[in-house]
Amino acid sequence: MNPLEERIIEEGIVLPGDILKVDKFINHMIDPELFVKLADEFYERFKNKEIDKILTLEVSGIGIAFACGLKFKKPVLFAKKTVSKTLGSDVYTSQVYSFTKKINYDIMVAKEFLQKGERVLIIDDFLANGKAIEGLVDLCNQAGAKVQGIGILIEKDFQPGGKKIREEGFQLESLAIIEKFENGKVVFKESIS
Amino acid sequence: MNPLEERIIEEGIVLPGDILKVDKFINHMIDPELFVKLADEFYERFKNKEIDKILTLEVSGIGIAFACGLKFKKPVLFAKKTVSKTLGSDVYTSQVYSFTKKINYDIMVAKEFLQKGERVLIIDDFLANGKAIEGLVDLCNQAGAKVQGIGILIEKDFQPGGKKIREEGFQLESLAIIEKFENGKVVFKESIS
Repeated sequence: MNPLEERIIEEGIVLPGDILKVDKFINHMIDPELFVKLADEFYERFKNKEIDKILTLEVSGIGIAFACGLKFKKPVLFAKKTVSKTLGSDVYTSQVYSFTKKINYDIMVAKEFLQKGERVLIIDDFLANGKAIEGLVDLCNQAGAKVQGIGILIEKDFQPGGKKIREEGFQLESLAIIEKFENGKVVFKESIS
Repeated sequence: MNPLEERIIEEGIVLPGDILKVDKFINHMIDPELFVKLADEFYERFKNKEIDKILTLEVSGIGIAFACGLKFKKPVLFAKKTVSKTLGSDVYTSQVYSFTKKINYDIMVAKEFLQKGERVLIIDDFLANGKAIEGLVDLCNQAGAKVQGIGILIEKDFQPGGKKIREEGFQLESLAIIEKFENGKVVFKESIS
């Protein structure tokens, strides 16, 4: 098992509804040194691609995207879910459906920060139905930026997002792929390292 | 001028209503290498204090708090503004008034992640009226945790938050202190390094 899988086994909690609670090291409290190791692993998997910028989505993608920005020595752009006085109106917008909350919400990036021809690595914490990732890809398409790869911490293999994104031809790398939950335990699809 | 002040002069934009737009390197796009330098500066200022945990508030505090977590080699806890299925109900809650949005909102941390006796360094991006910082201090007080210091990227000296927090006896360190905005330009209170 790799360090992320080990930590999930040690500290992840399976909640009803196939929800994996990883609040202790990803979604509420963050272990920065773990994230640096995981960014190193993303670097190994994407080092043959030219990357100009890391793109993620607020809130819980920011920590791992920051660690990747450090490793790749590139700026980190986080798409926003709410308008603000500083964001302005000159933005690309994509609508994302949340299966968890059963609502549509908009994600936005300022046009000035996502340029035509830029080579983007998308990073996020979870991949399940893939709607947030599709929204980030859509923002890149609107800008004429090129998605060079997609890096995910935890993918739920029993939900359709990963398969769809791979079929579209993207290099999708997930550091922990969950095949199923069984009796409150996590079963990984395969050991990665 | 220190690296943060230099960057504010180069890339910050003063908007009507005394709003400083730093979306290019703090609030929307992040420069990870700048944040590492700023975390080094926070470390210099707080290295005599015992720190067990970095506490910040989602969203835009997460990047700099992460950089501090790396430098101090401690976990980063970010207070949440919205409830979620994984957060649960066993939380400390504090109400914060937003002068920008003219609304009250709740900030929350899970009780299991903020323990009695823990020594906390609070980190955030902006300090103006100080309501968010007061909320974070309140969460620590509820938990019986001890606030060892407060580190801020940009403080607006012409708004009352900083003075009040210093009068309460906290070690408050702001890396860029803005005295005023004048003809669309930023005037710093003093050069720090």
